[in-house]
Amino acid sequence: MINSNNVNALERAGAENEEVVLFHSATISEVNHAIEKAFDIFEAYKTLPTLKRISFLENIAEELSVTGDPLISITSKETSLPQKRLEGERERTINQIRMFVNLLKEGSWINAVIDPAQPNRLPLPKPDIRQMQIPLGVVGVFGASNFPYAFSVAGGDTISALAAGCPVVFKAHSGHPLTSALVGRCILKAARSTGMPEGVFSLLHGAGQEVGTAIVTHTKIKAIAFTGSYLGGKSIFDAAVKRPEPIPVYAEMGSVNPVFVLPGILHNNSRAVAESLADSNALGVGQFCTNPGIIVILKSKDTEQFLEDYALYASNLKGGTMLSERIYHAYTSGIDTLRSHEEVKLIAAGKHDEGLNSAVPHAFKVSGKSFLQNKNLYEEVFGPSATLVVADDSEQLYEIARSFPGQLTASVWAMENDFKEHRELFRVLENKAGRLVLNNVPTGVEVTHAMVHGGPFPATTDSKATSVGSRSIYRFTRPLCYQNFPQELLPDALKDNNPLQIWRHIGGIFTKDGLK
Amino acid sequence: MINSNNVNALERAGAENEEVVLFHSATISEVNHAIEKAFDIFEAYKTLPTLKRISFLENIAEELSVTGDPLISITSKETSLPQKRLEGERERTINQIRMFVNLLKEGSWINAVIDPAQPNRLPLPKPDIRQMQIPLGVVGVFGASNFPYAFSVAGGDTISALAAGCPVVFKAHSGHPLTSALVGRCILKAARSTGMPEGVFSLLHGAGQEVGTAIVTHTKIKAIAFTGSYLGGKSIFDAAVKRPEPIPVYAEMGSVNPVFVLPGILHNNSRAVAESLADSNALGVGQFCTNPGIIVILKSKDTEQFLEDYALYASNLKGGTMLSERIYHAYTSGIDTLRSHEEVKLIAAGKHDEGLNSAVPHAFKVSGKSFLQNKNLYEEVFGPSATLVVADDSEQLYEIARSFPGQLTASVWAMENDFKEHRELFRVLENKAGRLVLNNVPTGVEVTHAMVHGGPFPATTDSKATSVGSRSIYRFTRPLCYQNFPQELLPDALKDNNPLQIWRHIGGIFTKDGLK
Repeated sequence: MINSNNVNALERAGAENEEVVLFHSATISEVNHAIEKAFDIFEAYKTLPTLKRISFLENIAEELSVTGDPLISITSKETSLPQKRLEGERERTINQIRMFVNLLKEGSWINAVIDPAQPNRLPLPKPDIRQMQIPLGVVGVFGASNFPYAFSVAGGDTISALAAGCPVVFKAHSGHPLTSALVGRCILKAARSTGMPEGVFSLLHGAGQEVGTAIVTHTKIKAIAFTGSYLGGKSIFDAAVKRPEPIPVYAEMGSVNPVFVLPGILHNNSRAVAESLADSNALGVGQFCTNPGIIVILKSKDTEQFLEDYALYASNLKGGTMLSERIYHAYTSGIDTLRSHEEVKLIAAGKHDEGLNSAVPHAFKVSGKSFLQNKNLYEEVFGPSATLVVADDSEQLYEIARSFPGQLTASVWAMENDFKEHRELFRVLENKAGRLVLNNVPTGVEVTHAMVHGGPFPATTDSKATSVGSRSIYRFTRPLCYQNFPQELLPDALKDNNPLQIWRHIGGIFTKDGLK
Repeated sequence: MINSNNVNALERAGAENEEVVLFHSATISEVNHAIEKAFDIFEAYKTLPTLKRISFLENIAEELSVTGDPLISITSKETSLPQKRLEGERERTINQIRMFVNLLKEGSWINAVIDPAQPNRLPLPKPDIRQMQIPLGVVGVFGASNFPYAFSVAGGDTISALAAGCPVVFKAHSGHPLTSALVGRCILKAARSTGMPEGVFSLLHGAGQEVGTAIVTHTKIKAIAFTGSYLGGKSIFDAAVKRPEPIPVYAEMGSVNPVFVLPGILHNNSRAVAESLADSNALGVGQFCTNPGIIVILKSKDTEQFLEDYALYASNLKGGTMLSERIYHAYTSGIDTLRSHEEVKLIAAGKHDEGLNSAVPHAFKVSGKSFLQNKNLYEEVFGPSATLVVADDSEQLYEIARSFPGQLTASVWAMENDFKEHRELFRVLENKAGRLVLNNVPTGVEVTHAMVHGGPFPATTDSKATSVGSRSIYRFTRPLCYQNFPQELLPDALKDNNPLQIWRHIGGIFTKDGLK
């Protein structure tokens, strides 16, 4: 367990040190200790002035931004991800922290709603009622393997929970333990230097399921965030809802992110569409949650040309080393299953890259009819694999669209005449995904207010949440209302004179004005 | 099953008719038929212009407002609730519908968030991303027995779901089948006269659990709303999370709504506080979810006087007929348990009222120490029963406050000097309830924007939701974002020129302005 007690030991191990550093799995008693400590300081942490919380987060961003090349090279060794990609991801992670800093500074995220009293209302007076969001309590966060920074120790889950006022107990992913420890150290340093209560953040290692189970089932854990596989996320969800007190689980479990290609754009732009999609599919060796794994083409006279364009381009794409041996084996086994499928035809295999666990991009094609009849073809093959489905007609295209389970994203490539003709496709896809994309690739998730990185089950376990963007903070809050409270007992966000100068919803109107 | 096919049969049975009307339990095939029909028209219903949905809801309110005395007298017979109370509840239900009408007219509930594109951003351009709330799909609603209008057929659950754009399949409570049928007829009449797609609302009867289970486990049901007992709500939750596709369950399961009375106010106002609390406890024969069942008094020289004031007043309160024989028996059994408890002392029994299943108000007292040691004393006795707990000192008071499970409400009665001394109590209670009340009784739930009628488990199965007030609509929606969509494909709420003239969140600012 990493907390301020043993940061020094890690310090001695040294970030730049080339030696192997061994981490021990946390014991159950260490897990309990971390959670109890977080629980004990929850009330203190949530009632800190917002400026203190802001300076804590700012400090994490600063600590992260001075980790320099040593962190990048350690993470690259642990994950096989290229340094340049990791530099970008660290930058994105830092920017993500700063987005939450700005969200707290701006302040309206708290959703202050005020309904003033009407003492003369008949038949009964109406009391003064004021609502805002409050933090849930101690949050357990599970790190993902594919984003060692952005969805790991100081990633969006941890930061949005800390921003909301929730202490965090973090379970490091076994794929990058040293990276986790070093980033954890950034958070602990920031916590110490900004005077946060001890226990606001703990990092636990644990290769098996024992540590994770102990976190999920602890009575003082009030919510869980997870990014990873369906099996991992679903088993956490099942454990959490079986607790005597069920708790919310925000598990982002990936999806095949279907792409629909309409005839008009194929006629005008077949090659550019093919290349964009093939690039997106092979990006980062296909290890993104939003990787476009299934591409549905409405049959037209240009379909064959598109398939050729795609196959030609994909055949020249180079593979790369995957995150782990386990992930690589799952990929090759998924590819083998597709290759041996009677109704599926291989149309492209990319170039092999040197190195261990190196995956080769693959593309397959299948008819719409066969696709509809084989539910196993809907399953995600995590990695640079694309299945191109040719739909006979619009009816079949819509039928395919309707047949998908919940997705993180659904994309359409279309010209104006295409979407005029296929409005129904959009109405169907609205019910299927958290994000609809037009003439863009789904990979690349903007960290912004309007982002939804989520979607209906089985893409996530809670379609009402997003795990990216400012609204991800609401996973860790709930509304509370105060009835008939005097000014001095109300939180600043709800006081008459609006001391925080935030946007509020008063009697149905958005305003920064105080109450008269 | 009541739908427009058999409204006429009901019409013939006649609302004013004194004869017994028998309702048959819906068959599984009728349940499936209702759900399939609702599913089939979901896309049509959700894409109707908002004005159409508004006129549907307005029409329901109008239909309900012309039900007149005949409905009241039928409901009074079915529920034993007094006519005057029912008239008030119907009025409240009508006002609740009108609140949703106004919410839809005003429009900002859709939570439009726009992050404009930044085509020149480096290293990569930022795409245009726009988010809003969309309806989840077909919603199953279970009626409550204690509010035959406000939490039943045309109550907040049904209306907020319909307002959100979700078709509703409603399971009537067996306690008031004719009332349910008559109110269901109002909705169906309104649906017909405003041209709603057939299947937007269905009413199903069913005395056992079969109909309910068939609704909860149907793959095309996307959310459940329920108000009632812990056992009922928890069993629905358990069934819903075990589905291959788990769905959200909004079960409001009641609570004991602890009240904390501090010394200053007792010293100044003992009798008035005692009378307010005893009245609130006995109101409607104690059959409100927010009934104050446990009153914790911080010991002072005025404690004995307060206990005497409470006992004297409660002894003169009159009981009344409860909703059903089952509820009456549960109440008397709860009272018997308290009476036979070694450490609990009866301090008042009210006056018996004529009539079947007539409950008598009861008040008990117990020491803080005994209370803490007997977890069964924390359990709700549904009806006019109050347990007064005397805490030895502030420490014990806080310990008691911390020991409560999740509640709908927590109240404090205090003077200024009291809350200056006991700030910690408020910080503790914030984590325990959905609504904090100061120097007001918890009964009486305002239908307003800021209301939270919800709270941590076991008060509800989802602490992030409210089942009363405008924000109850979000139980049936989720966020969706559109990336890189042209104006003509965007919903009106997200178009540049803001044709709906609603408040939106654009680049972090609330505005009604369009995009430049």
